[in-house]
Amino acid sequence: MSKQLSVAVIGASGYVGGELTRLLLGHPNFEIKFATSESFAGKLISKVHPNLRGATDLKFSKISEVKKVDIVFACLPHGSLATKISEIEKLGDIIIDSSADFRFRDSADFAKWYEGSPAADASKWVYGLPEIHREEIKKSKRIAVPGCTATAAILALLPLVDVVEKSKIIFDLKVASSGSGNKPNLGSHHPERAGVLRSYKLSGHRHTGEVIQELGLPDVPGYSITSTPEVRGIVCHAHAFLNSDLTDKEIWKLFREKYSAEPFVRIVKEAAGIHALPEAKILSGTNFCDVGWELDGNSNRIVAVSALDNLGKGAAGASVQCANLVCGFEEKAGLEFLGLHPA
Amino acid sequence: MSKQLSVAVIGASGYVGGELTRLLLGHPNFEIKFATSESFAGKLISKVHPNLRGATDLKFSKISEVKKVDIVFACLPHGSLATKISEIEKLGDIIIDSSADFRFRDSADFAKWYEGSPAADASKWVYGLPEIHREEIKKSKRIAVPGCTATAAILALLPLVDVVEKSKIIFDLKVASSGSGNKPNLGSHHPERAGVLRSYKLSGHRHTGEVIQELGLPDVPGYSITSTPEVRGIVCHAHAFLNSDLTDKEIWKLFREKYSAEPFVRIVKEAAGIHALPEAKILSGTNFCDVGWELDGNSNRIVAVSALDNLGKGAAGASVQCANLVCGFEEKAGLEFLGLHPA
Amino acid sequence: MSKQLSVAVIGASGYVGGELTRLLLGHPNFEIKFATSESFAGKLISKVHPNLRGATDLKFSKISEVKKVDIVFACLPHGSLATKISEIEKLGDIIIDSSADFRFRDSADFAKWYEGSPAADASKWVYGLPEIHREEIKKSKRIAVPGCTATAAILALLPLVDVVEKSKIIFDLKVASSGSGNKPNLGSHHPERAGVLRSYKLSGHRHTGEVIQELGLPDVPGYSITSTPEVRGIVCHAHAFLNSDLTDKEIWKLFREKYSAEPFVRIVKEAAGIHALPEAKILSGTNFCDVGWELDGNSNRIVAVSALDNLGKGAAGASVQCANLVCGFEEKAGLEFLGLHPA
Amino acid sequence: MSKQLSVAVIGASGYVGGELTRLLLGHPNFEIKFATSESFAGKLISKVHPNLRGATDLKFSKISEVKKVDIVFACLPHGSLATKISEIEKLGDIIIDSSADFRFRDSADFAKWYEGSPAADASKWVYGLPEIHREEIKKSKRIAVPGCTATAAILALLPLVDVVEKSKIIFDLKVASSGSGNKPNLGSHHPERAGVLRSYKLSGHRHTGEVIQELGLPDVPGYSITSTPEVRGIVCHAHAFLNSDLTDKEIWKLFREKYSAEPFVRIVKEAAGIHALPEAKILSGTNFCDVGWELDGNSNRIVAVSALDNLGKGAAGASVQCANLVCGFEEKAGLEFLGLHPA
Repeated sequence: MSKQLSVAVIGASGYVGGELTRLLLGHPNFEIKFATSESFAGKLISKVHPNLRGATDLKFSKISEVKKVDIVFACLPHGSLATKISEIEKLGDIIIDSSADFRFRDSADFAKWYEGSPAADASKWVYGLPEIHREEIKKSKRIAVPGCTATAAILALLPLVDVVEKSKIIFDLKVASSGSGNKPNLGSHHPERAGVLRSYKLSGHRHTGEVIQELGLPDVPGYSITSTPEVRGIVCHAHAFLNSDLTDKEIWKLFREKYSAEPFVRIVKEAAGIHALPEAKILSGTNFCDVGWELDGNSNRIVAVSALDNLGKGAAGASVQCANLVCGFEEKAGLEFLGLHPA
Repeated sequence: MSKQLSVAVIGASGYVGGELTRLLLGHPNFEIKFATSESFAGKLISKVHPNLRGATDLKFSKISEVKKVDIVFACLPHGSLATKISEIEKLGDIIIDSSADFRFRDSADFAKWYEGSPAADASKWVYGLPEIHREEIKKSKRIAVPGCTATAAILALLPLVDVVEKSKIIFDLKVASSGSGNKPNLGSHHPERAGVLRSYKLSGHRHTGEVIQELGLPDVPGYSITSTPEVRGIVCHAHAFLNSDLTDKEIWKLFREKYSAEPFVRIVKEAAGIHALPEAKILSGTNFCDVGWELDGNSNRIVAVSALDNLGKGAAGASVQCANLVCGFEEKAGLEFLGLHPA
Repeated sequence: MSKQLSVAVIGASGYVGGELTRLLLGHPNFEIKFATSESFAGKLISKVHPNLRGATDLKFSKISEVKKVDIVFACLPHGSLATKISEIEKLGDIIIDSSADFRFRDSADFAKWYEGSPAADASKWVYGLPEIHREEIKKSKRIAVPGCTATAAILALLPLVDVVEKSKIIFDLKVASSGSGNKPNLGSHHPERAGVLRSYKLSGHRHTGEVIQELGLPDVPGYSITSTPEVRGIVCHAHAFLNSDLTDKEIWKLFREKYSAEPFVRIVKEAAGIHALPEAKILSGTNFCDVGWELDGNSNRIVAVSALDNLGKGAAGASVQCANLVCGFEEKAGLEFLGLHPA
Repeated sequence: MSKQLSVAVIGASGYVGGELTRLLLGHPNFEIKFATSESFAGKLISKVHPNLRGATDLKFSKISEVKKVDIVFACLPHGSLATKISEIEKLGDIIIDSSADFRFRDSADFAKWYEGSPAADASKWVYGLPEIHREEIKKSKRIAVPGCTATAAILALLPLVDVVEKSKIIFDLKVASSGSGNKPNLGSHHPERAGVLRSYKLSGHRHTGEVIQELGLPDVPGYSITSTPEVRGIVCHAHAFLNSDLTDKEIWKLFREKYSAEPFVRIVKEAAGIHALPEAKILSGTNFCDVGWELDGNSNRIVAVSALDNLGKGAAGASVQCANLVCGFEEKAGLEFLGLHPA
């Protein structure tokens, strides 16, 4: 099968850009024409992403060198795409963005959570979570891929949102180090970061705004992020109180209704065994979000659990999934990697 | 200073027993006369605990070989001490137990959380948490040391318990692998356990009962345990909703009132820096429980955080602290190790 | 493309069997008909290998239930296939074995390194290292896949074997935990294994025999294995003394001659950067063996380095590569995964 | 016991300085009067070393603020002390330095391994390895503490140096991340460093010069350093060829002769068990160097093994041990911590 569509990866030297490059190299329909990095322009992309050695001779270009392609994948830091959107729109008809710039339907919400960032007109954009917006995504040419922790939080609670106390939800998220990007700092210095469970952001995290928007929450939920010593992976525990007594069977029904047809959401809830609930480490490199839950027999509490790879379903994988939908390709194209066990 | 008091460690081959042995070897007032292990009897204790090489020639004995000592430290599996308490009481006037057998004031509570375990008369026993029961401990000769996660949960929330919605508290605990003991199984097999954030017990954990008892909770709180890839350390996030608006300054006051005089509870809440809130990894080997919190400016929510070494303040360190109080020694005797950084 | 050939994986519940199952599920030409496990027979294979959830409905069978297929992949413990080889030969014309049973051309060598194991007639078998035996593999129907550390050691030193002192070679190997299989024991218990650099086997390791055979060494080389805290990956440092002065350029020539045409051996030797020499962690899940070296400017010493995934090029990946050669398929078929960065 | 001697720690914000500060705070005879850091001057030392919270109110000073003390512990970067030695000598009669500046008896050797560094007159200095130079240390007031990997290499091979081929020794060292200091860079960025076994320096490492000097080697030995994913710890495998056949009993004799009376070198060589040979992880925070070996029954090769904490016996612990000797205190004073198990 020939690679029908040409693509550019804008901001390809970061971790999301690198993962996207890897996925696109293996994709049956997309051909990477440009992978940009202002600071590494002219260098082989495998100098930055050593896993790509031998797989491509592609070199980084500057954005100014990019010619018109079919699809632009943007992986720039938050606030960057918004300022150059008119320039980027000339480079491709379809834009898939993994930054926060166009995720909010209401610019007031954006302003609240991204104080100081440039305002952007997101009216043409669709929030790139196929589990909620698949049909809109298929018809759109502007996709704002969700934040990695937001995807984990939303997919954990989505089937339950109408049966729990909406104003008492607590998302307790455990997030690996690659979620903080590729810039060294004291907090990411190995002797300081190895082995920590660090209270990174216990309230006020920017992704909270997306979760409120997509789940339709009336208030700001608890949203606390603990940094873990792993490199990839998010595990979300969504603690909530049921509005009425529900049996495990009824909860199963809610999850099945929501996710049975989803290609990348798996319900993981087994009666026994060490892998009975979602875990992130077997998901590295995949586009899966595994979900499960436990009812507390001693109270009206439920804990929903989700796990995903922050660079996979949390960013680059989701970008490819959305691109597949926009272009009418098989939704799983290029996303078949199953993950490793043990890992 | 001579080592005035003789002690026996019953169940010294486990991780708690080993840590207790290490602490007692360095204690100025206690001299270990016996360290028991039915399966390793006759072998050097350093064969099981290699860190003790060269520090002692002590060999494991069987319980039947133990002669009368001043203090018995019991580190047997839950349910074991209760069945042989009359035998053990003959071996020492003072008994410090790190199992669950005597932690509950009400045997009905014990029965609820430890279904199937032998009932025990705990009427002479004091719950060994000095931060709540110091004066009782000083006067007692029977101390039931708290469960490791219970200590983390109680100390995180103790200053706040009267200002939050008591029926909506969520404890989200992150617990390292040594908390599950020294018996290999598939879940502890390195390729399966390394790198996981595993939903180990999302509800119904036995320590919940202790937390209800000590904090005086009206209902069963959320109490969810995630296994981490570390060997030592517990981090607890206690999510709660304030009954009324409180400022950060008022919360400071509550924590200071409770903990300023405590030798092993440190308030860790800094305005900046990577170690701004409690972390477990710098506490390995210590008896500290560090506590902190964050108020969510967007809601009435507070997250209290605690961190400790499950084998330290969570078990063996707490046992020594209690023994110091019972015997009238300096409360910090033998517990001066400050922990490592980096680690 | 239809999946033309039917295969059985004998011993599919172990780590090598699981990885092989994963690779075969994604292979364009092979269709798994049977995956055996005597103890898990009747259960979904995803119960043991959770990464395969949703990817297959295959259940484990017993060996006695296996019907004739085109290819048998054997992943049994050492000594097992040899005792049932006549039975297994009836199940498939082609047998690819990842155990040690048929790796030695001379049964005396086998007896020396595998004392007590059943003798086996290996006369029809080819050592499954394409980098040495590609043409023989293509013509054979019996392939004995190399030991994981042997592949690392051989490929590190192969270009240099004729220019170094053959009797003074030291292989210092660093090996991750999955190399020891899926059976829990005290040494694999997470609190004991996490974070170790443990001298696992400093001499006498069984794979030494294969290395002697394939490199044609006159003596037993140094062959020391250190267990690392990782789950996958082998790094081999081969220390050797050059027979005569050679420049770096001459060494480059030796490596290029040997490996330029190899699809899975990459020369990794960069002048700068943090990934200048082979590393295992970016190779997890791949079939690559990266090789490099450094000349010591202060002596006549050279250190050759190799890295691979012990379950990939070290076992399951190598099995698929050999099967591709035997069947005349594209050598890289089913082995296109590039590995993750960061990871 | 009163703290008789006043000390200053010059360069106390680094990892060695922090560990030294921790050790000195717990030392019965030394009292820290000054702990310097030019960049953190005026801040609590616990802001940088969070393990010291509550243990001291000491703040960092600038060097220019230091008043005369009994002992100066210098922990400056290599090349720094040499340039200000006349200034520092005014601050204390006794100087214990953990940098490389005064380790070489012959300035030509220093020039060879530290090209470009300022020359220094080391004639008054003693190499601070008590296992070789105890009596000289006792009589000296200038101690140059060895490099961390040099201590591991020297102590592993010292008992064997006269029975092996001196020109064919290979030191294969595995070194944790804190050995590279506290400055973040791409190589120390957690996503890049976590989980690696990275060929950091396969030849030409500066510590090689010390090892040649102290072991009296005729040539430059193999000296290769692999970075490990741990934070503390060095494991050294010294591969060597015996000049003549020696039995294990004879090797035991050599090690016992050398180390039986040593307070911090333990021979670890057990017939069975998972901790049969030296491991670093149980040594974190201690001043031990554990040593062992294995004879290869199939050749004339021996592998000696050593393990230590690079910040302990490899730097700060060794500094305190030397200071104890210089001052006539108990050699183990302040160094009693036994290390943790499990850890």
